[in-house]
Amino acid sequence: MTTEQFNRRYLYLRRLIDARLVSGLKNSEPRDLMQGSRYVLAAPGKRVRPILMILSCEAVGGRVKDAIDAAVAIEMLHNFTLVHDDVMDNAPSRRGRATVHTKWNLNNAILVGDVILGLAYRTFLKSKTNNIRRATEIFTESFIEVCEGQAFDLEYEHRPNISPREYSRMISKKTGKLIASATELGAILGNATPKQTEALRSFGRHVGRAFQIQDDLLDVVANEKDLGKKIGGDIVEGKTTFLLVHALRRSRGAEKARLRKLTTRRATPVAFRHQRQLVKEVTSIYERSGAIEAARTQIRQETVAGVSALDALAPSNSRAMLEWVSAMLVRRTY
Amino acid sequence: MTTEQFNRRYLYLRRLIDARLVSGLKNSEPRDLMQGSRYVLAAPGKRVRPILMILSCEAVGGRVKDAIDAAVAIEMLHNFTLVHDDVMDNAPSRRGRATVHTKWNLNNAILVGDVILGLAYRTFLKSKTNNIRRATEIFTESFIEVCEGQAFDLEYEHRPNISPREYSRMISKKTGKLIASATELGAILGNATPKQTEALRSFGRHVGRAFQIQDDLLDVVANEKDLGKKIGGDIVEGKTTFLLVHALRRSRGAEKARLRKLTTRRATPVAFRHQRQLVKEVTSIYERSGAIEAARTQIRQETVAGVSALDALAPSNSRAMLEWVSAMLVRRTY
Repeated sequence: MTTEQFNRRYLYLRRLIDARLVSGLKNSEPRDLMQGSRYVLAAPGKRVRPILMILSCEAVGGRVKDAIDAAVAIEMLHNFTLVHDDVMDNAPSRRGRATVHTKWNLNNAILVGDVILGLAYRTFLKSKTNNIRRATEIFTESFIEVCEGQAFDLEYEHRPNISPREYSRMISKKTGKLIASATELGAILGNATPKQTEALRSFGRHVGRAFQIQDDLLDVVANEKDLGKKIGGDIVEGKTTFLLVHALRRSRGAEKARLRKLTTRRATPVAFRHQRQLVKEVTSIYERSGAIEAARTQIRQETVAGVSALDALAPSNSRAMLEWVSAMLVRRTY
Repeated sequence: MTTEQFNRRYLYLRRLIDARLVSGLKNSEPRDLMQGSRYVLAAPGKRVRPILMILSCEAVGGRVKDAIDAAVAIEMLHNFTLVHDDVMDNAPSRRGRATVHTKWNLNNAILVGDVILGLAYRTFLKSKTNNIRRATEIFTESFIEVCEGQAFDLEYEHRPNISPREYSRMISKKTGKLIASATELGAILGNATPKQTEALRSFGRHVGRAFQIQDDLLDVVANEKDLGKKIGGDIVEGKTTFLLVHALRRSRGAEKARLRKLTTRRATPVAFRHQRQLVKEVTSIYERSGAIEAARTQIRQETVAGVSALDALAPSNSRAMLEWVSAMLVRRTY
């Protein structure tokens, strides 16, 4: 398949998912709950997880219809985490749109998150498979791990020295697990053999890690317009990222002390006029310490490892497209 | 069976459920999340929903082990709603213990609620039944309805004139549905016939309504020590209750205007020194308008209707105990 064909197919699947995300929202009441849910589920998105699930299903011989309900459900689950995480991070906006707690209020954000999770299970349970128990278990375990990952993330905000190992555990729960579950579920819904399922889970795990490190990297190297938010947001908010954890480990002496001082969670937010200077200084330490290079290297390695896992599957357009998507994800600029 | 035997069996089941509620919490990390979840799930409770589920299962010939996982799961689901509702209601304590957002913080309360829901699904999916898809669907629909009921409740806080019909819809979603699902799921897990399932669902629906009206009633007629919280809390907080809705409908002229004035949601909370007077005055309007008598009548009618639904089942100790539990619930003082 050509790049243009991949792009067309991606767009086709994305539209299919977009339509299904909102098709279950027929009630107009309770008003704030329904409007808030629609607002979240109608927001544009890359739909990475559902598309990886559908392609994984196809790569083992399944069809779109075997995975579509679970695919929409995993995107809903992802959106549930975004709504609640935005509350916890006190984020006023996401990708240029006001967050639910900003546009409505805290209570509606909690409830909208909750009900989207309910809709996720409702949609998931429509999946036509003889393995519904096992599939729902995998779905549930990824939901629990996402909560655990977020809890570690909150905990780390108050600790100055997170090891790369701790960071890796946190991020694999918070982000990696859902992507690995997407590909694993795609395999199961496509009636894969255990070997195929393992290959796709492994692919998902590696791609998930690459995806997250790329996210951390984009926060400092992206173009603001592409990213849809301010560069260095993670730095200003004092978030634990791959770059921070590795820069702290790689730097020494005065530079290390300076970095720790600059990135320690603050009691009061950084004044707007100081943000640009802060981001500039931290970014240059990231560069000098080799953290940025380390991120690029690891993204490359994870992608290669993910793609080699796919060797266990017979060649097919969908397998080729899984490779293409993984390459696209690490080349993305937003 | 004698009352003493019923009491003993209730206690036995309650302890069984209590033990299972916390047995899955083996991890010590993430710390706040795990401690918060344990704090919630180890809190004492009546365990009404899981016990009704187990008895319903037995009443159609099933055994405790057929329903125990789903029973524990529905209690977890109930606890998830309590944690998030307490955040939304800004409640400092529940039954004499600090709420999660008070003891920890908002973020941990959101996450603890979320993860308890995840644990609920994990536990539910252990149920040994050939009907796992249908059972999980019922579980999910009750979860969605609880969210909708809570959303209506929040919406009504800002509307002065809620009709009895609107109140009834809200409360049947917020409280009734979960109890009706408990008895319905008990039937399904016990391999009931459709007729038996319908009988137990109907029983649960009626008992659920009686239970909620009793809750509203206890807020004004209970003893503070039994209740574990201040009498008239619903009045002080301006909550929409059976009593308020019916008193507004039944009163006229100056009294109606006065009641509306006293119960309109306030921008600032009622000063502590005025609370007792407010509760006294509103309670006396509740009495004069006949709302309290109407509550007692409806509780009686719902209980009778619930118990007659059980006639469709063959007599058994468990059927007798379902009757006993429903009677106990409306005689309770807390």
